[in-house]
Amino acid sequence: MANESTDKNSDKHGDKNNLRIKAIENGTVIDHITPGQALNVLNILRVGANFTNTVSIVMNAGGSRGDKDVVKIEGRELTEKEVNAISLISPKATVNIIRDFEVVQKGKIETPDSVCGIVKCINPNCITNSSEPIETRFVVTENEKKKTLALRCVFCESVLTEDLIQFIE
Amino acid sequence: MANESTDKNSDKHGDKNNLRIKAIENGTVIDHITPGQALNVLNILRVGANFTNTVSIVMNAGGSRGDKDVVKIEGRELTEKEVNAISLISPKATVNIIRDFEVVQKGKIETPDSVCGIVKCINPNCITNSSEPIETRFVVTENEKKKTLALRCVFCESVLTEDLIQFIE
Repeated sequence: MANESTDKNSDKHGDKNNLRIKAIENGTVIDHITPGQALNVLNILRVGANFTNTVSIVMNAGGSRGDKDVVKIEGRELTEKEVNAISLISPKATVNIIRDFEVVQKGKIETPDSVCGIVKCINPNCITNSSEPIETRFVVTENEKKKTLALRCVFCESVLTEDLIQFIE
Repeated sequence: MANESTDKNSDKHGDKNNLRIKAIENGTVIDHITPGQALNVLNILRVGANFTNTVSIVMNAGGSRGDKDVVKIEGRELTEKEVNAISLISPKATVNIIRDFEVVQKGKIETPDSVCGIVKCINPNCITNSSEPIETRFVVTENEKKKTLALRCVFCESVLTEDLIQFIE
């Protein structure tokens, strides 16, 4: 629940000026998200207008192009596939699982060596874009020039290097 | 800045369990947004991955399908056009302008009688969808059956009744 007070008589730097968001009882805190990627994380998690649990998001925490984004989702734990997808757009993120107000699992996301069924191949002629029932599979490498992640399709060797979010299914 | 603590030893219901978001120094608080509409408000305000100021969002504040969404944006005041667009998807929202930590303007959004240059007409043959330099203009009415807003194009009489967000330019 948001508890907000910004009236003129309140202490300028006191508690009353804060929007305070309650701790979540059960759910997931995704912290240290690359600044600007919080909304893409919500897209990966399919959290939109129809999601009914409480979600708190801070983008650019710490000021202009701050050091991170944060997403807290009540009543939701992430699947391995979702964590892998997040790792592609935000390799330094951490995922903390909360149960009964306590952190029961805390950890940095590890970028997997390969990702299956997460990313759509850019090549329209790739067998994964045909009617064959074949799951996509990409080897995760580094884009050395830009120090970002790159993905190589094991079927057609196409390489995805930029804006990976647009290829995440 | 997010100040978070969820370690096992902290008081389960105390301050330490809260994610606290600092009051904004200059900017806008959009409160009482219809639950689920916060991300559409961000779309209207063109706040995405490239926006560099701090933004805090709470969806479904108050628990499952809670009573409201809230959006706080640092260093940004809204234009009349943006406020009118928000009124179409969230008629009960309030917009508070903050300067130097104080609320200098506070008010309910008033749904305008008509909206110009905000909504794209659904009719491909409408003159506003031709190459003529004519701004769109819709009369705002009520969808009596559903107690929601409806828009009537003053040029072609097309009526938009549902999912108005998809027509907002």
